[in-house]
Amino acid sequence: MSSPAIDLAASLFDRLAAETATPPGVTRASFGAGEQFAHALVADAVRDLGLIVTDDIAGNRYMTWPGRDRALPRVFIGSHLDSVPHGGNFDGAAGVIMGLAAIRALKDGGFEPQRDIVVMAIRAEELVWFPTPYAGSRMAFGLVPAEEYEGLVRSDTGRTLADHMRELGFDPDALREGARPLDPATIEIYIEPHIEQGPLLVGLGKPVGIVTGIRGNLRYPNCIVRGTYGHAGATPRAYRHDAVFAATDFASAVEDAWDDHERNGRDFVATLGQFSTDARHHGMTKISGEVRFTMDLRSLDNDLLLETDRRLRERAREISKARRVEIDLDIYRNAPSAIMDQNLISLLEEEAKASGIDAVTMPSGAGHDCATFAWQGIRTAMLFIRNENGSHNPDEAMAMDDFAEALKLLVRALRRVG
Amino acid sequence: MSSPAIDLAASLFDRLAAETATPPGVTRASFGAGEQFAHALVADAVRDLGLIVTDDIAGNRYMTWPGRDRALPRVFIGSHLDSVPHGGNFDGAAGVIMGLAAIRALKDGGFEPQRDIVVMAIRAEELVWFPTPYAGSRMAFGLVPAEEYEGLVRSDTGRTLADHMRELGFDPDALREGARPLDPATIEIYIEPHIEQGPLLVGLGKPVGIVTGIRGNLRYPNCIVRGTYGHAGATPRAYRHDAVFAATDFASAVEDAWDDHERNGRDFVATLGQFSTDARHHGMTKISGEVRFTMDLRSLDNDLLLETDRRLRERAREISKARRVEIDLDIYRNAPSAIMDQNLISLLEEEAKASGIDAVTMPSGAGHDCATFAWQGIRTAMLFIRNENGSHNPDEAMAMDDFAEALKLLVRALRRVG
Repeated sequence: MSSPAIDLAASLFDRLAAETATPPGVTRASFGAGEQFAHALVADAVRDLGLIVTDDIAGNRYMTWPGRDRALPRVFIGSHLDSVPHGGNFDGAAGVIMGLAAIRALKDGGFEPQRDIVVMAIRAEELVWFPTPYAGSRMAFGLVPAEEYEGLVRSDTGRTLADHMRELGFDPDALREGARPLDPATIEIYIEPHIEQGPLLVGLGKPVGIVTGIRGNLRYPNCIVRGTYGHAGATPRAYRHDAVFAATDFASAVEDAWDDHERNGRDFVATLGQFSTDARHHGMTKISGEVRFTMDLRSLDNDLLLETDRRLRERAREISKARRVEIDLDIYRNAPSAIMDQNLISLLEEEAKASGIDAVTMPSGAGHDCATFAWQGIRTAMLFIRNENGSHNPDEAMAMDDFAEALKLLVRALRRVG
Repeated sequence: MSSPAIDLAASLFDRLAAETATPPGVTRASFGAGEQFAHALVADAVRDLGLIVTDDIAGNRYMTWPGRDRALPRVFIGSHLDSVPHGGNFDGAAGVIMGLAAIRALKDGGFEPQRDIVVMAIRAEELVWFPTPYAGSRMAFGLVPAEEYEGLVRSDTGRTLADHMRELGFDPDALREGARPLDPATIEIYIEPHIEQGPLLVGLGKPVGIVTGIRGNLRYPNCIVRGTYGHAGATPRAYRHDAVFAATDFASAVEDAWDDHERNGRDFVATLGQFSTDARHHGMTKISGEVRFTMDLRSLDNDLLLETDRRLRERAREISKARRVEIDLDIYRNAPSAIMDQNLISLLEEEAKASGIDAVTMPSGAGHDCATFAWQGIRTAMLFIRNENGSHNPDEAMAMDDFAEALKLLVRALRRVG
């Protein structure tokens, strides 16, 4: 398996890994040095591809292969170039690099696109830096609330989003005043290749996934169970206000809901990622008076999430009463699900079948920039590349053979829609 | 309600609270300044009672009212004089002070005991200072393992038990070599008055409890669930190794056992006092790979505890397998239960009934020095005094009226056994 397109991709991956290494893994902070290097690297790589390189005022980079009719709505291939601290080399970057490799392959094959094909390198996707989802793609469409530019600070520097953007020559002030650098009407299709962040493709032995939708989520950052501290031996059961047993009972209620959804064939996952008694007050011989926990519910069906919220709040009230505690789920934040375009999914399935690519359709549990495009009414698709050991860690492992399979599928799709 | 006995007790409580105050509450560290003051205070108070004051080499203080036949096995009334940091004034001290008040009342009533009546002020009962149970009473019987004298350090000073004892003129070296300052054969009866540390007497509206036994305990300080961290959205249920749901499932298993014990009328309580994901690695959008928790099981029936241990270890294995995690309960420490003397309980019930004292029999969930005496084969009894707001906190609240009721019962009992 070697070709100028694969060689280009391999060379970009290698240079990116070497230049943004912070052992273990790589670090490419949003609007930081690593991301900045990645944006420079891809622009440099496309010189001999003859692409037009432009940036928007949010810092997103567009590498455009002009089509025969430049007035037609364009085809986008995109992903982000930032990473989590000490993350892997492929999360995000694989999508941008595959876009460039696809153009290399199409050019080498003599293809001439009817419409512009644009590879978009998106800023600031990783929530760990600025706590707002899909900052780069949402800024492109003018969707980030005005107050967030000065309100959000980067986790490592403590400096605001606006400050970091100005430092690199971008224009947060115009965005705050309502600028929308990217017009959805000018985009026909957005395709995002990305490594799978879960283990499904590895488990199924498939190199490529065709994504059916991005799970939406309900996130509860501040759940708390308020009970009463008490003597572990001297307090009879009927006098206890035990926050731990109330919280673990609530966890069972979450699993009960999950069991029901599973039986009904409905897409759903639930995670209580943080779950802790208070280290300042708890003790082995003390009934705990407080448990704090977080909850993350996801589904392709946003109505199911909202229905589950109602069910769990009702259960929380019942458990609170029965156990003489207060279970307070507090607020949630809802990122709605995003459904991929059914015609694009079918097209990708056809092309995979026709070319012997062993692909499978699957939901994306993680969020991706393509959700922003789908919410704008743009026809959106997503390709997953098999990846071992999850993402957001230095051990993520994508084989170039699998990358090549996904690239082959992307190239075939672009021949039909480009 | 006033009498020289009650006035003596009230005066001792007041001076103790004033001189060991560390707002909020009082602090009387084991072999520390507050405990030392308390030992001096009670010895000073008994001068005009004509008691013989002696200390043993472990620091316990004995205030003896000689009986007509000094060769007879003695009657002890005892409790401890240390407190937790910022604790309440009554936990421990109420027992010693009630012993002195009882002698005052008996003398005022012209009673002359047949056998010695000894009020014992015990050292170092509060585990928070030195992590070994009932240090003072166990040292008196030579029961503290030799290695603990130099092995245990006080939580606030970091200095060894032996060091603290030597500083006050006691002799840890003789104890390490096997000295047993107190011979169980010389003690006929040990009675410990103590505030109730739970809410039962308040709930029942009773001033006095007659204790049937001290619950034994199994303590598990190092339970751990080892799972695998994973992406909260991208990991399908079948691929999860979620430490939180496994741990909460195990908590349900503990409650199932408790339900069964309750249905069968068996004394049992369970507490998971500490229960936490790892703050260095957990996150709202991350499946947790680790939960640590503690477990404290108590019962009057030590066999039930050991049976429950076997049952819970089996359930831990089943849950581990079903959820693809490892639940490791690690070791337990077992403090066996101690049953109070049935004849003494009957005597106390008779005297309560005869004098119109509204007393109720009940188990003690908390551990007390009287367990040490019971384990030595000494006939042992315990009186609980109603107390609001639990113990080990500055808000514990014992009414002197309730103290007076318990004192009245103790005095009547001593007239029969003294």
